[in-house]
Parts: sequence; structure tokens; C-alpha cells
Amino acid sequence: MPKQPDRTNVPQVAVPRMARYLRLLQRLQEEGVSRISSRQMADRLSVNAAQIRKDLSYFGEFGVRGVGYDVAYLISRLSSSLGIDREWKMVIIGAGQLGSALARYRGFREEGFDSIAIFDSDPKVIGKKVANHIVRPISEFVPFVRENQVQIAVIAVTAESAAEVANLAVEGGVKGILNFAPVQLKVDPGIFVNQLDLSTELMLLTYHLRDE
Amino acid sequence: MPKQPDRTNVPQVAVPRMARYLRLLQRLQEEGVSRISSRQMADRLSVNAAQIRKDLSYFGEFGVRGVGYDVAYLISRLSSSLGIDREWKMVIIGAGQLGSALARYRGFREEGFDSIAIFDSDPKVIGKKVANHIVRPISEFVPFVRENQVQIAVIAVTAESAAEVANLAVEGGVKGILNFAPVQLKVDPGIFVNQLDLSTELMLLTYHLRDE
Repeated sequence: MPKQPDRTNVPQVAVPRMARYLRLLQRLQEEGVSRISSRQMADRLSVNAAQIRKDLSYFGEFGVRGVGYDVAYLISRLSSSLGIDREWKMVIIGAGQLGSALARYRGFREEGFDSIAIFDSDPKVIGKKVANHIVRPISEFVPFVRENQVQIAVIAVTAESAAEVANLAVEGGVKGILNFAPVQLKVDPGIFVNQLDLSTELMLLTYHLRDE
Repeated sequence: MPKQPDRTNVPQVAVPRMARYLRLLQRLQEEGVSRISSRQMADRLSVNAAQIRKDLSYFGEFGVRGVGYDVAYLISRLSSSLGIDREWKMVIIGAGQLGSALARYRGFREEGFDSIAIFDSDPKVIGKKVANHIVRPISEFVPFVRENQVQIAVIAVTAESAAEVANLAVEGGVKGILNFAPVQLKVDPGIFVNQLDLSTELMLLTYHLRDE
């Protein structure tokens, strides 16, 4: 049975805010700060203090009025709740521009996401070096993820190839997929997919800007 | 005053679904399909037919029972509603791995997002060629975006530099910012920021996977 802190049920919609709190608290800890109030956190982030208190109340009432929250404790609870209190093995499928950039992205390593391999189906790309990894042929993907018990696959291939690649990921036992291909994946209910389409992220701006 | 179609008020939460519908419809149009029912759309996407009918009802009651929606009309209404019925001028700040990949990303061009320049502050990077663009020094950024009336800036710099760069974007008259730096930007209320932190996108998976 998981330890108590792992069972904190933060709603999914709060995850991006929790990640932001965690990042602020990590920075504060580096600066030597050991306690902080919700108001001080609110001043540093674009979130109001009441929202912060509500979000942090999922971890129980441990902010002390006039004294604030214990930074180290909060970091530990947030990390556990977001699942980043451990290492995650991740592979990248697609060694094009985006896949290569993701393989090299420092921000992932800093949060404990370790890209251990990168795969492609293009003979022109296979064997090339990307971020200390030799690009492997996609034919090696399923045995590799099985042998290394890879939990997360990042899909950075074209829309046309994404479904096939997602099937391989599921076949290899991957539990979570971050999909950059602009196509909806159909996978088993036990597999979590985060669909991240970069053009749609721009449409979230142009949707507002169109009437300006 | 904007034309009627521009005034359709789709709620922001529906934007990613609308983008998905649009992409499916564009593909269907290429295949020569001129009419489609909500049920057929639901079969191709991971959204139920009732949700699709509700979403499309923002454009008025133009789906005909037993006949379905007119694909071309729906594409036109969705494009207008998402603000992608026009060209958007975009610049990228940060010519590192991520910024370079974004400058080369075909998916942007396909949706009418045209990266017209890329900037960096690192003398080692300035002058290099990235996706048909010579990397420009950040000192040229403000005059460039003013002269070219750039509407969107994509920030792909470190967390430490992001705030400074965002201020330059606002100074240059940019109206929308897609920020990949893992830090909350504080900008004027009239500027739209989409904060897209790639590590947080992975946390949306590990948040689910931690108890597996």
C-alpha cells in the first residue's frame, strides 16, 4: 500500500498551479527561505492568496497564521502529489527537430524526467547522435522499453505515424504518453495520454486576438 | 465592426476540441467528403457525439438531422472562431534547442503561423542560420517587431531571462505570448499569455501514474 502522502487527491485541474508552487518553493529553498506565507507566494505568482490557501489545503491545514508554510515540507508534499519524488524512465519517438529538441531539453532532467533513448524509423536519421544518445531504429523499440521498464513515451512523429507508434508504446508496456502529434490517439483505458498540440496552443492566443 | 462569424463566442475551454474538429474536417475535405454527421465525427475522435453537437451549436443550428453538417461551412466557421482565418506574424525569442525546433516546426506554418524571425542574446548563436532565418541579436528585437507589426512572440529562453524578454515583447507591441520558460510572466492585462511548461505537461501524466 502506498505511503500516506501519496494518497493526497489534488484535482487534476490544480496540477499546473501545484507545479508552479513547487517551482517557486524550490527557488526559495535555494535562496535559504524556510517559511513562506500564502500572501508572499501570491506576490511572486499570478495567483491570489485565497486560491493558494485552497490548493494547499488538500495537504491538510499545516499553514500557521502569521508564520506561514514550512517550505521543505511543502516541497516534499507537492513532489509526492505530482509524482516527481522519483525517477521516471522516458523515451522519445521521433528524432526530427522537435524530438531532438525534447531529447536535449534541460527542463526535463531538472524535474527528474530522464530521456534514456530516442527512436526513429528513417534510415537517414538512425545511428545519428542526439543528446548523448544514438538514434535507434523503431524496430528495437518494443524490446527496449520492455527490458528497461520504460514508463513514459514522448511521441514527436507526424500525425500519419502517431497511431502506429502509440500502439507500439502500449505493446511495450508504457503507461503514459505525451503526444505532440496533432492527432487524437485511441489507447486502452489504463494508459494515460496527454495530447499537446503546439498549434492549438497558439490558437488559444489567436482565439483572443482575432477581435483586437 | 467585425463580421458576424467573428463574433461567435466559443468558451475558451472548448478551443482545444474545436481545433481537433477543424483538423478532422480539413482532412475529410481533402478526402472529398462534403457532409458529415456528429456521430461520424465522434467515431473518428475521442469525443462523444452529444459533446460535438453541443460544441458546434455555438455556430447556430445548421446540422441537418440525417444529413449532417456542411464540411466547408464548418471549416470556415471554426477557422474564424479560432482566429486562424488570417496570417499571424510570429517571432521566436531564444535560438537554443527548443527555439530552433519551434522555428522549424512545420505544424505552425500549416495552420497559418509564420515565424518571420528568431532572436538570441548569445554572441555564439547570433548570425547562425536556423530554418532560413539568420539569428538576430536581441537588441534588434523591439524595432523589428514594431516595424513588422508582429502580433505573437514565442519565448523559448531560460526562466532567468524570460521576464526581461517578455517586457521587450510588450514594448514592441506584441499582443500574444506563448511562453515555454517555466516561470509565470507578469504583463499588462491587454496582453494574452499562454504559459506552456513542458515539464508540467509530463507531471499531468506522473500525477496519474504515481499510484500505479
